[in-house]
Amino acid sequence: MIDTRPVSKPLLAYTVARLDRLVSKLLTQQLKAMDITLPQYTALSVLAAKGSLSNAQLAERSFIKPQSANKILQDLLQAGLIERHADPSHGRIILMTLTEQGQRTLAQCHQLALEVEHKMLQNMDIHLVNLIQSSMEKMTKNLKD
Amino acid sequence: MIDTRPVSKPLLAYTVARLDRLVSKLLTQQLKAMDITLPQYTALSVLAAKGSLSNAQLAERSFIKPQSANKILQDLLQAGLIERHADPSHGRIILMTLTEQGQRTLAQCHQLALEVEHKMLQNMDIHLVNLIQSSMEKMTKNLKD
Amino acid sequence: MIDTRPVSKPLLAYTVARLDRLVSKLLTQQLKAMDITLPQYTALSVLAAKGSLSNAQLAERSFIKPQSANKILQDLLQAGLIERHADPSHGRIILMTLTEQGQRTLAQCHQLALEVEHKMLQNMDIHLVNLIQSSMEKMTKNLKD
Amino acid sequence: MIDTRPVSKPLLAYTVARLDRLVSKLLTQQLKAMDITLPQYTALSVLAAKGSLSNAQLAERSFIKPQSANKILQDLLQAGLIERHADPSHGRIILMTLTEQGQRTLAQCHQLALEVEHKMLQNMDIHLVNLIQSSMEKMTKNLKD
Repeated sequence: MIDTRPVSKPLLAYTVARLDRLVSKLLTQQLKAMDITLPQYTALSVLAAKGSLSNAQLAERSFIKPQSANKILQDLLQAGLIERHADPSHGRIILMTLTEQGQRTLAQCHQLALEVEHKMLQNMDIHLVNLIQSSMEKMTKNLKD
Repeated sequence: MIDTRPVSKPLLAYTVARLDRLVSKLLTQQLKAMDITLPQYTALSVLAAKGSLSNAQLAERSFIKPQSANKILQDLLQAGLIERHADPSHGRIILMTLTEQGQRTLAQCHQLALEVEHKMLQNMDIHLVNLIQSSMEKMTKNLKD
Repeated sequence: MIDTRPVSKPLLAYTVARLDRLVSKLLTQQLKAMDITLPQYTALSVLAAKGSLSNAQLAERSFIKPQSANKILQDLLQAGLIERHADPSHGRIILMTLTEQGQRTLAQCHQLALEVEHKMLQNMDIHLVNLIQSSMEKMTKNLKD
Repeated sequence: MIDTRPVSKPLLAYTVARLDRLVSKLLTQQLKAMDITLPQYTALSVLAAKGSLSNAQLAERSFIKPQSANKILQDLLQAGLIERHADPSHGRIILMTLTEQGQRTLAQCHQLALEVEHKMLQNMDIHLVNLIQSSMEKMTKNLKD
């Protein structure tokens, strides 16, 4: 008989996945009031951090498929949160940047994310939080090596 | 001017999301050799843990939409990893359980997940890992309260 | 002008020393009711752990000077907590072992130490305590290398 | 039969004491080259932090007996590291302060302590060290409440 029982203690990877799913669910609910989806918020964050990106670059940096990136960008364009312009060095490539309204919206989204973060970390020692963060960065490095 | 710069230190929630995405990517690659997707592996795990479940119960417990659950179960049925039978107490409800082949497959998937976990945690103090896990459970509880 | 200000954050070594001094003070107060000093308790613990020791061995294992060890052993002998007997393999060496009364006394001392430990660790995550302990063992190793 | 075996895992209080004794031993060895004892270094640190203190205040703040404080201060006076002067507000009380030579000596002692600290903490995550320090402060508070 094969042992298919879950091990007595769940994998840390499973605990990480469960927490991430819960954060995503709560943040998605918060963003709904602003008529923004989580992938749209992620795209706005990535664009703001990089200044301007092509469709392909955005997809790569956001870990999403190019066709998904395309749909997200169309929606953000239509909502007036980003705008298109030609790449100054490669005229045929179209880059996206945030409009002023996009910047305002992003700042509000950041605020909502911060509130979820604070709820998640309430009553926790800041040094413990910093240790967990540096440890997770080490785990990420372990997996990439 | 609105401040849209990411805060100097990323949110822990972002670090969690990044690690989870990387684990999912690596595990998906590992499972490909067994012709299993990550959602299929998750469904097999949930079914094994609960004994047997209806389509609706599986969807709820796996955090996926009922229509996605339906597609996953169809694929698992076709691959001979699960089988259908009537709920003994409510004859019209169809429950799913793992076949012997499904149990063997699940054990192999668990082994692959364990290898990713070990790679992720290499050179880390087991007490630190335990502390991170209990802390993330506390964060999950904070978010649910 | 020479900078003699304490660094803004005290050394960890100083925090360790401060905690150790406080634990010693509280445990000494607790032991007073049993008419035992902290060095006597330490000597009883070391003797119990090793079975029997000479004066010189006790001094070395308790980090105390031989003349201090001598005084402690005299007091424990007089209180009937330990007894002397010749080393079976080297007749001229005198070994000390706990009497039955000494064993009873030691068990009571352990109980008092456990109460101080519990007060010290109240409301602390057991995994954090384990991590601190393994980390301090690593620090001890760092200093010995 | 009474159980006098040490518990399988030593108390954290014992691990703390062991580390503290090792730090004291190494620092004492380092200070010997400067012809300073550990209690003298402690007294210099306390005096520097407070500006000036009476014999009684020094004893209280250094956790030592007044007669020990007296001997330490005599040695420091003789070595020219501290000097006496009347308390401006209570003329009959004698206060001690560091001389310039005392300040130079203290700065060198701090440097030696810092080297022991660095050896102790080598290869340790700074966030873990911070967490241990804040946790030990919490333990100290637990014991004082």
